[in-house]
Amino acid sequence: MVKIGILGYGNLGRGVEAAIKKNDDMELVAVYTRRDPSTLTINTEGVAVKSTADLDTGKEPIDVLIICGGSATDLPEMTPKYAAMYNVIDSFDTHAKVPVHFANVDKAAQAAGTIGIISCGWDPGMFSLNRVYASAVLPDGKDYTFWGKGVSQGHSDAVRRIDGVKDARQYTIPVPEALERVRKGENPELTTREKHTRECFVVAEEGADLARIENEIKTMPNYFSDYDTTVHFITEEEMKANHSGLPHGGSVLYSGTTSDGTKHVIEYKLTLDSNPEFTGSVLVAYARAAAKLNAEGVKGAKTVFDIAPAYLSAKSGEELRSHLL
Amino acid sequence: MVKIGILGYGNLGRGVEAAIKKNDDMELVAVYTRRDPSTLTINTEGVAVKSTADLDTGKEPIDVLIICGGSATDLPEMTPKYAAMYNVIDSFDTHAKVPVHFANVDKAAQAAGTIGIISCGWDPGMFSLNRVYASAVLPDGKDYTFWGKGVSQGHSDAVRRIDGVKDARQYTIPVPEALERVRKGENPELTTREKHTRECFVVAEEGADLARIENEIKTMPNYFSDYDTTVHFITEEEMKANHSGLPHGGSVLYSGTTSDGTKHVIEYKLTLDSNPEFTGSVLVAYARAAAKLNAEGVKGAKTVFDIAPAYLSAKSGEELRSHLL
Repeated sequence: MVKIGILGYGNLGRGVEAAIKKNDDMELVAVYTRRDPSTLTINTEGVAVKSTADLDTGKEPIDVLIICGGSATDLPEMTPKYAAMYNVIDSFDTHAKVPVHFANVDKAAQAAGTIGIISCGWDPGMFSLNRVYASAVLPDGKDYTFWGKGVSQGHSDAVRRIDGVKDARQYTIPVPEALERVRKGENPELTTREKHTRECFVVAEEGADLARIENEIKTMPNYFSDYDTTVHFITEEEMKANHSGLPHGGSVLYSGTTSDGTKHVIEYKLTLDSNPEFTGSVLVAYARAAAKLNAEGVKGAKTVFDIAPAYLSAKSGEELRSHLL
Repeated sequence: MVKIGILGYGNLGRGVEAAIKKNDDMELVAVYTRRDPSTLTINTEGVAVKSTADLDTGKEPIDVLIICGGSATDLPEMTPKYAAMYNVIDSFDTHAKVPVHFANVDKAAQAAGTIGIISCGWDPGMFSLNRVYASAVLPDGKDYTFWGKGVSQGHSDAVRRIDGVKDARQYTIPVPEALERVRKGENPELTTREKHTRECFVVAEEGADLARIENEIKTMPNYFSDYDTTVHFITEEEMKANHSGLPHGGSVLYSGTTSDGTKHVIEYKLTLDSNPEFTGSVLVAYARAAAKLNAEGVKGAKTVFDIAPAYLSAKSGEELRSHLL
């Protein structure tokens, strides 16, 4: 059994917890929290809820720690810190800061003889794998990533911060015509606006100025100003009834040429009922790989690019070759 | 530069040759043939055409030999033989005989200190990778493989062997309704007949009994009797004008559950203008991996499951993390 600790018990931590139940060779040993452990009830009976202070001793009986924190402030600090004590996995997703994060985790993990696999999930993660496989097989080509239809938690949070907004949900939606052009292998140049639209469902506070809220959303730099955005004001009941899930997904498309006029299109498409449960499932598969690799003496920071697929599976090499090749 | 030799110059050998031209770090050193080398003209100027007798010396100046033979009789003999002398890659695709082939290649490669990566292509190959990644991430799920629309060379050959048939092309076509049910995550049980149909274009010899040919095709065991098959008789001119390419493709679909009522669908889809050029491109990417891994001291038989994705790419780890993660 691979003994797993989960650090952080938000949506992602619960997604990891659900994923562990689907894997017979994985055992959840403890959930670690920065809150008072006595205030936290988890979904798995008989599993300890402990304080991060316990984790900080470096003596917890776990093979791999799955760190379920945010990329902005939690992971840059937590992943290197705990890589100095345990094998760790995270879902760090600030693309521009990956090199620094990788270097920090590598330094800690090399010194401690642990392994730290960063940026696991679907993007970065499964989508990244498909960009690398496709571009390695078809070097003369171009990749496209479309996200959605799905809930962007970052964009939903940004709308919630607007004055007069009680609750909000933001869907990212690929533009169907753009997707079709890429699927046909046209290799179009597409602007941000041509690739995705954004749709917001907003519960406003009573008496709030709806026109002002709509304008603030549509003109928000980085988040909305480069997109065609639709805003719908709805009731709290409608929000609860129709927008309580966290579905997401998208496609990585790659179009490449092997000789004059001979082209190939590769599409990897995810349709996910729950973003955190799928991301948690990817983290758990890479936790298995981390345990196996570290047992073989592998240490240091890794990404999904560095891990041979067989390490993710509970099946033996013989089983994989007989049944899945 | 990775120095490549190609053994066999049929459709697949020419596909490998085309792929090498798209990779700046790969160099085609020689094409080896069982024919008289003086009778063979290849598409790359300045590259030697040599006899397999030269290869048999074990002294050819190549880093990797890409073996472009058939799975029925060529590869079971050739891949172990040449793994005893060179790093080798093949596209062995007789699923049931993979364990024996793997063992034979492993024995030769372990003894010689070479690496032999078998069963590279798209199925087995890229499709296999997607079956392993998906089932590792979502262990509670089910995979489906649909092939086509595309030309099956094996089925085309089977039709050509019928008395009175001058030429034939067979297309494998997924049943759209079956594909849609799987895409929706319904996890249906599907029979062979429910998944694919077969369409044959046949040029008959003058005066041949068309009804007999059609009946022989439709009732042919293994190849056609389990499918709904359509047969069209066409002229040689129509065959040349409309059916001279070797397009293929298909989808690996995987539908899995992470908690009650929460499901996810993963689809990996290929749309290929040329089956042999795409397969050749996969072989070349794995040839790069073979050269890198053997330089690190790795030896023995491997499959795509054993190779970390970064080894396929000409880009460095830093570049991959900065641009594709």
